[in-house]
Amino acid sequence: MFTLNDIAVALNRPVEGDGTLQFAKAAEPGRAGPNDLALAMVPTYSEALAAGQAQAAILWEGADWQAMGLRGAVTVPRARLAMARITAVLDPGPDLAGGIIHPTAQVHSDAQIGENVSLGAYVTVGAGAKIGAGSRLAAHVSVAEGAQIGRDALIHPRVTIGARVTIGDRFTCQPGAVIGGDGFSFVTEQESGVEKARKTLGDQGAITEQPWVRIHSLGSVSIGDDVEVGANTCIDKGTVADTTVGRGTKIDNLVHIGHNNRIGEDCLICGQVGMAGGSTIGNRVVLGGQCGVNDNISIGDDVVAGGATKIFTRVASGAVILGYPAVKMDSHVASYKAIRRLPRLAEQVAELRKTVANLVQSSRHDT
Amino acid sequence: MFTLNDIAVALNRPVEGDGTLQFAKAAEPGRAGPNDLALAMVPTYSEALAAGQAQAAILWEGADWQAMGLRGAVTVPRARLAMARITAVLDPGPDLAGGIIHPTAQVHSDAQIGENVSLGAYVTVGAGAKIGAGSRLAAHVSVAEGAQIGRDALIHPRVTIGARVTIGDRFTCQPGAVIGGDGFSFVTEQESGVEKARKTLGDQGAITEQPWVRIHSLGSVSIGDDVEVGANTCIDKGTVADTTVGRGTKIDNLVHIGHNNRIGEDCLICGQVGMAGGSTIGNRVVLGGQCGVNDNISIGDDVVAGGATKIFTRVASGAVILGYPAVKMDSHVASYKAIRRLPRLAEQVAELRKTVANLVQSSRHDT
Amino acid sequence: MFTLNDIAVALNRPVEGDGTLQFAKAAEPGRAGPNDLALAMVPTYSEALAAGQAQAAILWEGADWQAMGLRGAVTVPRARLAMARITAVLDPGPDLAGGIIHPTAQVHSDAQIGENVSLGAYVTVGAGAKIGAGSRLAAHVSVAEGAQIGRDALIHPRVTIGARVTIGDRFTCQPGAVIGGDGFSFVTEQESGVEKARKTLGDQGAITEQPWVRIHSLGSVSIGDDVEVGANTCIDKGTVADTTVGRGTKIDNLVHIGHNNRIGEDCLICGQVGMAGGSTIGNRVVLGGQCGVNDNISIGDDVVAGGATKIFTRVASGAVILGYPAVKMDSHVASYKAIRRLPRLAEQVAELRKTVANLVQSSRHDT
Repeated sequence: MFTLNDIAVALNRPVEGDGTLQFAKAAEPGRAGPNDLALAMVPTYSEALAAGQAQAAILWEGADWQAMGLRGAVTVPRARLAMARITAVLDPGPDLAGGIIHPTAQVHSDAQIGENVSLGAYVTVGAGAKIGAGSRLAAHVSVAEGAQIGRDALIHPRVTIGARVTIGDRFTCQPGAVIGGDGFSFVTEQESGVEKARKTLGDQGAITEQPWVRIHSLGSVSIGDDVEVGANTCIDKGTVADTTVGRGTKIDNLVHIGHNNRIGEDCLICGQVGMAGGSTIGNRVVLGGQCGVNDNISIGDDVVAGGATKIFTRVASGAVILGYPAVKMDSHVASYKAIRRLPRLAEQVAELRKTVANLVQSSRHDT
Repeated sequence: MFTLNDIAVALNRPVEGDGTLQFAKAAEPGRAGPNDLALAMVPTYSEALAAGQAQAAILWEGADWQAMGLRGAVTVPRARLAMARITAVLDPGPDLAGGIIHPTAQVHSDAQIGENVSLGAYVTVGAGAKIGAGSRLAAHVSVAEGAQIGRDALIHPRVTIGARVTIGDRFTCQPGAVIGGDGFSFVTEQESGVEKARKTLGDQGAITEQPWVRIHSLGSVSIGDDVEVGANTCIDKGTVADTTVGRGTKIDNLVHIGHNNRIGEDCLICGQVGMAGGSTIGNRVVLGGQCGVNDNISIGDDVVAGGATKIFTRVASGAVILGYPAVKMDSHVASYKAIRRLPRLAEQVAELRKTVANLVQSSRHDT
Repeated sequence: MFTLNDIAVALNRPVEGDGTLQFAKAAEPGRAGPNDLALAMVPTYSEALAAGQAQAAILWEGADWQAMGLRGAVTVPRARLAMARITAVLDPGPDLAGGIIHPTAQVHSDAQIGENVSLGAYVTVGAGAKIGAGSRLAAHVSVAEGAQIGRDALIHPRVTIGARVTIGDRFTCQPGAVIGGDGFSFVTEQESGVEKARKTLGDQGAITEQPWVRIHSLGSVSIGDDVEVGANTCIDKGTVADTTVGRGTKIDNLVHIGHNNRIGEDCLICGQVGMAGGSTIGNRVVLGGQCGVNDNISIGDDVVAGGATKIFTRVASGAVILGYPAVKMDSHVASYKAIRRLPRLAEQVAELRKTVANLVQSSRHDT
């Protein structure tokens, strides 16, 4: 149970009406019962709010809560920011009691476990690994030899942290992520067909049958403070130096970060993005879902790529891009419109050719 | 061992020839040995059947089994439906003996385990979780606090079921799936570059350096009866209400379903599809492999999207779509053909310009 | 610690200068300390090398190591091949001591474990499974009933090997991969909307509400020698025969290989590639990141597909392709350039139409 006053404090905003109202949970406006706090931070929710049974709500700035028949309200200027603060207060968090090491956890005698660390059932921690104070690792997580995790991490079930990975403080990791698999890097004894095709943009030359030889990953993965990694996302080790993810960067589910990539700070890497390897990404870059990043290219600061953008070449700082291959968003929209008009254009050209042929014909007759 | 009669019963079709023939297994027609039942439900298999050693086969309706030298056959009108019924009979299923709780399973004292439930090695079940009668959970599965799973589930190894997830009856889940990770939802204190770019379709304005603040997931995931989820697929929790998957919907491997999506009934969501978040999908929708669905859009009933379609805006019920961005399939094919003819069109225009320039020239001479 | 002589032996190349120099590790040229071996196999690194503190380096053929102020060097003709050999020597490998079965490993009494096999904590091995001599399985790996793994496998944490999967020698598998999930194969009692749409290229006809019926996977997965599989990659079982992966093929992270696909030898399948099902791929095929392969098509030998190529129809051997839908790379580039010039082309056509209209007008006046 929480009160309207509790929420007002979290939002650092004044209570309007009765701050002592108590709630069991937050709810969408149309589904809110009489004991729920309705979250209706944009005016489009006003109808749904009227249809629900809420007695109190979080509302947009300037909303007339009394006219809506509510007994209390808090208004906010920025809906999503309010949502962040309210949900942080109401999230019960995972059932991982602080400081409890489950008896089935396998911790190497050489590992260093900080104060108040929780390890769930069947967790394994390798030789020389360090886990910072206050960190919580859920069931089936494995931390390999020499890995270092900072303070106050929250690592959900069956995440794999590879050998010699280093991670900053306040790391959050969703289930099934793999930090520190081996890089996908192979070479043939002689030049391969794909190497020739890349050089010539298409011609592979004579094909030679030859096996792929692995280039091992001597580097690892290095992750800054306040990073989040999504479910079943994979971040590969670097070849010589580490693959890096900068402070504050958030990575969504099923993302593939190949070896030797270097990602800046405060980036958002959305679901199913893939980065081949060896590329550099600036700060505050946003890659929409299913974007692809070619190997060994550079993407500047503050780039925003729309969903499914495939980036083959370098991108200047601040560019907003879209498409396969990626171009500036307005070019993409222009091209796309032109393609939609293309059948009409082709008709016009066919017509013109007839008319002009007739003109040529008659001008010859004239002569 | 099974007989031709067994299969005829499963198919609800008459046996032709000797129903007592016994088989060790089903096989493709060209590879079938004398003790195998050949599966040759379309006429294109007749040659392969002749090359194999099968003495009996499942054949297409009207096939002349005697002319093929077989000793027995069952004919079927719909090949894939027959395949479903035959394979259901012959599938030995996983080695999870009914009603056995492995001694290493960690079940919270508050959890409710139904009758005849099997839990494999190293399974964990949290406080308040409920698992319906007859359900089977393989090794390394974790079920978090408050999750509810219906009757007769088959959950393959190391699936993660998050806190407060609710799942209907007859749930099938392939290895490594994550049901109920946290949603990928972040906000900055002030308006961010990406928000500005979305509003203006490209212009980010001045860039301000600011960290992302998490919006927590208070909702969970709610899944209907008869749903299947593929290997390493991820379905995120909702922000306030649950992310939902309707009855009968089947989801393939490595699919990403972000927070607040609402998927209808009897849909097919193929491999590596990604749904950003907050979108609604109708009933009987088919999304081909690698499709992408933008956030906060609506897709009607009976939509069919071809492979790798990227859906940025709402789609009307019954539409058949393709492309990046998605358009009706026939428009896509028309555009695509026009693009292939574009270099020729450009040549024609260049020619026309010359001819017309000459005409203009000579018409001036005339005057 | 290793010496320059050790590396020269691994590379089968002569030492230049002092072969007894000792190193703690290899490093990128610009970051190399005095006890590091700098890896600078291409001339572009010469500046970085000068900036670092390395006393010895691996260099490109013909490099003047003395002029660079080094005390020793080995030169190599093919940089990436040298990288493969050096990294193989220096990789410490995972901390899985040979021949140790962790006391928590659950091995079925019917399973056959070869000599010198290592099983990590919480590994499970099912009835009738066979694991070849010298293989190492890390923590949380599960091997289901009847699966067979060859000699000298290295299987990283929490890989799932399904029932009756067969794998050759020297298998390498990154964390979280799922080999042998069930195929995604469903059918409706009557013809479904999607079947109609595929036949008519768009028209679904009348929609009938009907549930999907599973086609079970009786086949399994069969993998040749020297195959590698990436983190969280999924390879599904076949319907009747096995899904197959040929000798020497390397598969990256988060790849989806649906049921009944047949992949040849020495292929490279890059990150997030998806193959729907029932397709055949030749030998030495390279599919770039995020490529998609439609169901039931054939791709010849030595095909190279650029990143995010979506392959809907058969591809002849040796083709180098790109695009959605896939076309030959030079056609794609031509189309793409033409699209960029399309707005200009449309302007030219508009201009022509005016000019020609005037010509027509004046030719009428003339008459």
